[in-house]
Amino acid sequence: MLYLALGRGAWGELLAKVKVAAIQARPVGGDFRHPGNIRHALELLDECFRMDDEVQVACFPEYFPWSGGDELARKAEDLGMYVIAGLAEEEGGALYNSCVLIGPDGAILGRQRKLNLGLMERKHFGFSPGRELHVFDTDFGRVGIGVCVDFWGPPNVGRELARMGADLIFNPSFFFIFREVWHCLLLARAVELMVPIVAVDVAEFPFRLGDKVFESCGGLSCIIGPPWRDLDDFASWWYEPKFNWILGQLGYEEGILIRELDLDLARELRGAWFSRLLGREAPWP
Amino acid sequence: MLYLALGRGAWGELLAKVKVAAIQARPVGGDFRHPGNIRHALELLDECFRMDDEVQVACFPEYFPWSGGDELARKAEDLGMYVIAGLAEEEGGALYNSCVLIGPDGAILGRQRKLNLGLMERKHFGFSPGRELHVFDTDFGRVGIGVCVDFWGPPNVGRELARMGADLIFNPSFFFIFREVWHCLLLARAVELMVPIVAVDVAEFPFRLGDKVFESCGGLSCIIGPPWRDLDDFASWWYEPKFNWILGQLGYEEGILIRELDLDLARELRGAWFSRLLGREAPWP
Repeated sequence: MLYLALGRGAWGELLAKVKVAAIQARPVGGDFRHPGNIRHALELLDECFRMDDEVQVACFPEYFPWSGGDELARKAEDLGMYVIAGLAEEEGGALYNSCVLIGPDGAILGRQRKLNLGLMERKHFGFSPGRELHVFDTDFGRVGIGVCVDFWGPPNVGRELARMGADLIFNPSFFFIFREVWHCLLLARAVELMVPIVAVDVAEFPFRLGDKVFESCGGLSCIIGPPWRDLDDFASWWYEPKFNWILGQLGYEEGILIRELDLDLARELRGAWFSRLLGREAPWP
Repeated sequence: MLYLALGRGAWGELLAKVKVAAIQARPVGGDFRHPGNIRHALELLDECFRMDDEVQVACFPEYFPWSGGDELARKAEDLGMYVIAGLAEEEGGALYNSCVLIGPDGAILGRQRKLNLGLMERKHFGFSPGRELHVFDTDFGRVGIGVCVDFWGPPNVGRELARMGADLIFNPSFFFIFREVWHCLLLARAVELMVPIVAVDVAEFPFRLGDKVFESCGGLSCIIGPPWRDLDDFASWWYEPKFNWILGQLGYEEGILIRELDLDLARELRGAWFSRLLGREAPWP
């Protein structure tokens, strides 16, 4: 295993299978900056643990819960769970849209600041763009975080994460427009990269922006991965391929989606996929 | 205009609007190598001209008509039309899947050899991969050709064509599998590049490959472009965006799809799109 030395599993090796949760949270009062969001985030993590106490990593949407890193770290340690949370973080007078990865020991393993900011984020929230892309090593493999448009917009972020060895990519997002094309764009990323994707939106709520209310906002969180059981299943798929790569998805209500992903198998299938499709074992150079 | 000196319009300047045709041809006898394909291609070009004698560029799917470059060149000159045709071209003992661009004077302006070959093309047709990517200057602007998976698979080919100044990208394709996700992948390319796309498949026919017949093969050619009338229309779109970017599409039967594209407007909208979405005027670096 390539990242053996980097993993932190109790047995000194990577856990190939990982149970992931997409927590489609609804901001309290329809407001990302509501102080009650952190409490709601903690409740949702408890709820996730009640649903399945084997969940290893839970991911919130971007901006959620906005603040409360210390409380999240304590909860992550309580539950023995990795947590990815959307926090607005200040540094040097600038505000960043960060997705923070907290380990099951409560330590902050790192943060991914959003690189590409749409007009709303610049004007309404006053965010500054991040500059660096990271991957993070966990017990179950190497993780990348493409924050909202960073991942579904320009394809270079996903490609770079794959190049850096990401076995699993999280896409914490907030769709107040564009939600209708999200799955389409994610499917394109899956075809290009063949890396499992955990894509997390907020639950639907009326998003107020100045004097305008966006009603068709939120929902549709999903988990995408190669649908094949093994290499034989993969080989026979090509005779009548169906793109049932969405392993599970939520509707518009608040909810938690849990799936188990086999990252070893996904890695094997990745090489097979590109060999077959492009005549070489990797995505584009 | 940036490419003024490169255009070949009668008035010494680029024609911003261009009428394009996607010719969804059905190979004779369901066989790409059938000698009757060139005659059928010439008939379809005549039919296209009858439908609209202002069509400036007509594009066939890849592999079609397979051979007959000289006849196509004479027809292009007769009709005063640019023609993009799929030809199997030999050089140095290797066979290439080429899309050839013929000018309205009957001259061959260039060819794009397919860069990424799937298993079927390597084993069944015996193609070798091309190595270079080109753009071509015409009366109406700069043209790029991404052959089938080269464009809808890895995103770097489209990005490179855009970097080389392509105002319009053709995607001559053949889908014997995967047709159900083509529009999805094309929409991702449109979001990433915001360059008009003319995507041309063969008409549906039962494709025989060894002892297997692929019935769900062909169809769904389409033309994709920014749907906005002007920058005001673009600005108001964001309050309730709909991705009605497919300006026209065919079903599964043989047919010809004709649309007019405004490449000047598309160029203006491109800058506006990326500014709004990503906070900079260009696609990813």
